[in-house]
Amino acid sequence: MTADPYQTRVSSVETLLPRPDPVVFGEHGPLEPEQLKRYDTDGYLVLEELFDRQVVGEALGELEHLVALEGNREDPRFIWEPGSTQLKSIFEIHRISEFFRRLIGDTRLTGRAAQILGSEVYVHQTRVNLKPGFDGTDFYWHSDFETWHAEDGMPTPRALSVVLALTENLPINGPLMVIPGSHRTFVSCTGETPEANYRTSLVRQEIGLPSQQTLSRLAELGGVVQCLARPGTAIVFDSNLMHGSTGNITPFPRQSLFVVFNSVENALSEPFSAPARRPEFLAARDFTPLG
Amino acid sequence: MTADPYQTRVSSVETLLPRPDPVVFGEHGPLEPEQLKRYDTDGYLVLEELFDRQVVGEALGELEHLVALEGNREDPRFIWEPGSTQLKSIFEIHRISEFFRRLIGDTRLTGRAAQILGSEVYVHQTRVNLKPGFDGTDFYWHSDFETWHAEDGMPTPRALSVVLALTENLPINGPLMVIPGSHRTFVSCTGETPEANYRTSLVRQEIGLPSQQTLSRLAELGGVVQCLARPGTAIVFDSNLMHGSTGNITPFPRQSLFVVFNSVENALSEPFSAPARRPEFLAARDFTPLG
Repeated sequence: MTADPYQTRVSSVETLLPRPDPVVFGEHGPLEPEQLKRYDTDGYLVLEELFDRQVVGEALGELEHLVALEGNREDPRFIWEPGSTQLKSIFEIHRISEFFRRLIGDTRLTGRAAQILGSEVYVHQTRVNLKPGFDGTDFYWHSDFETWHAEDGMPTPRALSVVLALTENLPINGPLMVIPGSHRTFVSCTGETPEANYRTSLVRQEIGLPSQQTLSRLAELGGVVQCLARPGTAIVFDSNLMHGSTGNITPFPRQSLFVVFNSVENALSEPFSAPARRPEFLAARDFTPLG
Repeated sequence: MTADPYQTRVSSVETLLPRPDPVVFGEHGPLEPEQLKRYDTDGYLVLEELFDRQVVGEALGELEHLVALEGNREDPRFIWEPGSTQLKSIFEIHRISEFFRRLIGDTRLTGRAAQILGSEVYVHQTRVNLKPGFDGTDFYWHSDFETWHAEDGMPTPRALSVVLALTENLPINGPLMVIPGSHRTFVSCTGETPEANYRTSLVRQEIGLPSQQTLSRLAELGGVVQCLARPGTAIVFDSNLMHGSTGNITPFPRQSLFVVFNSVENALSEPFSAPARRPEFLAARDFTPLG
């Protein structure tokens, strides 16, 4: 058995490991070679207005419907802002809503995901983030893959997220921020995953976060970029890219659909560094390829 | 006796009052007529690189010295981030540091302030804000004048702030945000000032804040603008302009010098809506004109 090159949450010392796996696995497809190259280097790509305003309007209408859905207070897939009645996220939205199931299976998304990952893809996780105006909280810097590896058993970072902007993602309302190039370094984090960690980490992540020293180093090398987006624009980013977002005190909410596509050749095993699997609404174990 | 046109914190109903007083009082001086006009309309003005890098370097050096100053933990003029050892603000910095006393009296600042306010000016308050990287907290939307009227007895908004950027004020590290044009409306806030309110309000203001409905209305009319600034750039803004800033999770600290100039014809009386005066390091009662 080979050693896990993405060991994390096993030591009290943080380590920066070079990523042994590729970032781009495929060649041909809807993305231009220049776009693939940029994704390879920076770890993300902005696809301007991939969907039109009509689709966005329908998505917002569907969200209004879901926010008012009976029983959503008790549904663990609905995550609320701390101490507030405002909704922060809805997970597994493709199983709650037929509209979102279809949207997430749209070839504009799956085709590009399959091209980058060089294989058929399946849905690892979906969610809508509703960052409300006035008191939308921040998301601190993190690599998604670090959590998916430790807590879900995702073997390698052969996965990506697509963020589809549903409202204006402006410099002022807490847009996605990324550290370009940071996806090339795996930050092996300190600490140990507590039991049922996801119950608190979805509201505020405490474990699996890089140190300030490491963030400074990554940001010195790659800078920090805000990903601005009009409604309908999609941002594709590598599962190991360091990202976060500030809070939102403006009156303008920021709402986005997140879809995580994983390669069917990278299906989950058992968690690498957690006492138990997370629920399937966070980490799907139906590996059926899309499309 | 005439009724106070800026009544606030006396009712459980929020009211929006048109400002009866002018914004620009003077004519001739270092600012161009076009700049005065813009200030009148928008309520703020950005003066690019008013000071050079050498001055900024000296200011940062002086700050390092002050942060390490013995006894500053017990000095009420030093405000710390909640639950942290990081400094958030230093008040009355012109009385703590000879360097800042001279900088604040520089005619590049006092000349422009006197021109806008149409009289000699004195210092109502000074502070340095040190928004550290990684966990710099936000400042929610507020009008400074609302507090200075209620808690300090400032009769009218014939006062302004100058913010001198000491580090890069970027879109990503929680720069000053303003609602252009909002200085024309006085938001009479609900609630009552608790005793010694300033002890908590300097860390997180709770009283004297406009409602979300009012902020939405003001932002619909004027938008929300980030005031970006290179080190040495000064932002001048009206005492009644609605402003705030988001938190800062980037590694890049944001440090600024704030100086509040008040017209000598607008000297403080007794608080309009608070049980007692605030300490003089927050609201000076030495009305000696500068210069």
